[in-house]
Amino acid sequence: MPKQSLSRRRFLQSTGAAALWIPASVRGYTSAEVQALYVDGVMQEEVSKWELDTPALCVDLDLLEANIAKMQSTLASNGIASRPHAKTHKTPIIARMQLDSGSVGICSAKISEAQALFQHGIEEILLTTTNVTPTKIQRAMDLRQANASFIQATDSAANARLLSEAAGAMGIEADVVVDVDPGGHRTGVTPGQPALELAQLVDQLPNLTLKGLLCYDGGSQHVKGFAQRREQTLQRLAAATETYDLFNRSGLNNEIFSGGGTGTYNIDHETRGLTDVQVGSYVFMDAQYIDIGGESDEQVYDDFAASLTILTTVLNDQYEGRCTTDAGAKSCTINRPWPRVKGEKGMSYTSGSDEFGTLRYEEEASRSYQVGDKLELIVSHCDPVVNLYDHMYAIRQDRVEAVWPIAGRGMSA
Amino acid sequence: MPKQSLSRRRFLQSTGAAALWIPASVRGYTSAEVQALYVDGVMQEEVSKWELDTPALCVDLDLLEANIAKMQSTLASNGIASRPHAKTHKTPIIARMQLDSGSVGICSAKISEAQALFQHGIEEILLTTTNVTPTKIQRAMDLRQANASFIQATDSAANARLLSEAAGAMGIEADVVVDVDPGGHRTGVTPGQPALELAQLVDQLPNLTLKGLLCYDGGSQHVKGFAQRREQTLQRLAAATETYDLFNRSGLNNEIFSGGGTGTYNIDHETRGLTDVQVGSYVFMDAQYIDIGGESDEQVYDDFAASLTILTTVLNDQYEGRCTTDAGAKSCTINRPWPRVKGEKGMSYTSGSDEFGTLRYEEEASRSYQVGDKLELIVSHCDPVVNLYDHMYAIRQDRVEAVWPIAGRGMSA
Repeated sequence: MPKQSLSRRRFLQSTGAAALWIPASVRGYTSAEVQALYVDGVMQEEVSKWELDTPALCVDLDLLEANIAKMQSTLASNGIASRPHAKTHKTPIIARMQLDSGSVGICSAKISEAQALFQHGIEEILLTTTNVTPTKIQRAMDLRQANASFIQATDSAANARLLSEAAGAMGIEADVVVDVDPGGHRTGVTPGQPALELAQLVDQLPNLTLKGLLCYDGGSQHVKGFAQRREQTLQRLAAATETYDLFNRSGLNNEIFSGGGTGTYNIDHETRGLTDVQVGSYVFMDAQYIDIGGESDEQVYDDFAASLTILTTVLNDQYEGRCTTDAGAKSCTINRPWPRVKGEKGMSYTSGSDEFGTLRYEEEASRSYQVGDKLELIVSHCDPVVNLYDHMYAIRQDRVEAVWPIAGRGMSA
Repeated sequence: MPKQSLSRRRFLQSTGAAALWIPASVRGYTSAEVQALYVDGVMQEEVSKWELDTPALCVDLDLLEANIAKMQSTLASNGIASRPHAKTHKTPIIARMQLDSGSVGICSAKISEAQALFQHGIEEILLTTTNVTPTKIQRAMDLRQANASFIQATDSAANARLLSEAAGAMGIEADVVVDVDPGGHRTGVTPGQPALELAQLVDQLPNLTLKGLLCYDGGSQHVKGFAQRREQTLQRLAAATETYDLFNRSGLNNEIFSGGGTGTYNIDHETRGLTDVQVGSYVFMDAQYIDIGGESDEQVYDDFAASLTILTTVLNDQYEGRCTTDAGAKSCTINRPWPRVKGEKGMSYTSGSDEFGTLRYEEEASRSYQVGDKLELIVSHCDPVVNLYDHMYAIRQDRVEAVWPIAGRGMSA
């Protein structure tokens, strides 16, 4: 870790610029101090990643930008668009980067998350979850009234009628897509005739405009092995393509046929009719995705780089073969596989304790740690990890370049 | 669900008191609306729990109050004090209720959590985790300077020296307890001679005042079966009692000897010397604790009632034998055992999907649900669940009585 010759904290507290006497042991920044140093989009002082208070959520900008560029170029060469899912990053600035790279829109999982994105300047939002309560339907219509680019989903006739009534009561027209079940029976209407009838109803109801259909095959994204994943998702999306054809033959609008994700991004263009891919995790990657294997490497899915890490500090090194860190379940979740120590070998990390992480050394450990040392973890499952933090630090070559508010953090309603 | 004859939302938006025309289907409150209705500690309107937007974290006040009273009376009759751990609730108002009931102090897991408690009026704070970085040590000394009741932990000689230097640089005296390892090797110094030597060092170093020792036996709290739990924790705390005796014989202050928890609260007074129990989960309870069994019932630990629930809404009921709700991993965590539907039988709930919960009916299901229905979940593991929410609704007899900020939410640094 770099040593500080100056206490930033006291520097910030002082009103003048004169250097104060500072004990050599005082270095590092609190979260509040780094936020205060980030003014009008520019860091007012050089801060190293290693000086951040921990646990801290960090994103490597070079890797993030490369991930976004690679996704965009691959999909473009495959003749399909991206509509990235904000449930992964919940961060308006990343949504803006995605739109700027050429994405046709941004997906959102919940109405509160969509509101947070819109409040931070994102307009092209497709809400993939059907709102069923009067409260949420009203919120969605309020958002539609303020934002002509907002599209929402429905998956039942009763719900479509409620949407129509709510839009009518406000004197607005709402854009609607039909959510189609890929077979997991989690959300969506059954493909084929039931989906067609729902689309026809949406098309006929006043105050609604049918935009097409969704079919998110979440169950296939983490299938291990590229060939197996390809086979499963093409099979599961076949009924959605038949539904897309039914829309066509019935003269219904199917300009949107959205589905797919990070695990199938280089397969989804084979699903005939699909217009855009709802990729999410590719921006950050995580241990869960790394383990599914890719097209070129059956063991490691390395199409995208692990840009998201948790910086953590060693709190206790007194016991043989292990050390304890400050990043436990409240900072890492308990998703499996467990987080991995970035750049090291022969060590395993567990975050099963709420407050503490446990790092164990195996025989071939590439190094050991002492109290106060900081290390970086590749996260287990990026979506719920991001949901634990209010900010992420945007890092370039180990320097803090920005502090990004995770405006959608906790927006599960 | 109660029907609303009035749209609260529009009522709030209107400047006058005249009733507006409201479609019958509009009912319920957003989170922001309920917060706005809670003014100076009083709800300005009657709001039913069932009208809350979901997912919503709710605490039943009658059950919470009974849990706090029962803990206090049991410990009092056993001649031991309570020093409840705020890592569970992260809610200053609950800490205040605990102190008002007679607790001798409040434990906190991280310095940011301790700061949040203090900013909300809680003073008697014991920080159970050793701060190892200059940044965190400085924050702890800042808190000590502002709050004479603040006590912090140490578990190594090098750290004790850093604390002494930092306190000296600020011209203050810091109260310190020695954290002793109960055998899990997670945190703390080895009991016996190593702990004694550390205590002697703390006692001799300038600017530090030794207050005693901690030994939190987290590993025993969830042992199934009262007898097994009792045997394990008494065995694991025996070395801490020997350390306590060593302190005594060396003339060291051991006025604090803190340990134990919700799983061992009615056992911990048998650990000779122990002054107070760091109970946490008893305020809320959860599926993990219910399953450990109690002294009177080997199957169900029912000494305390499950006061904490997640209110969730059914989003999809189209598929046989199941329905989908809006409370998934981001609202419930993926801790096991899974959340349980309160007051119902013959159904299982899983929150493995990030955004959605899955409820499955078994043969003897006590009921089934339709889209829009709300149901309550007993949480899996209360600590990390609370850490997902910014507010909890305090409910009495199904009516919202208060909206409590969870000021320590996300305070893991």
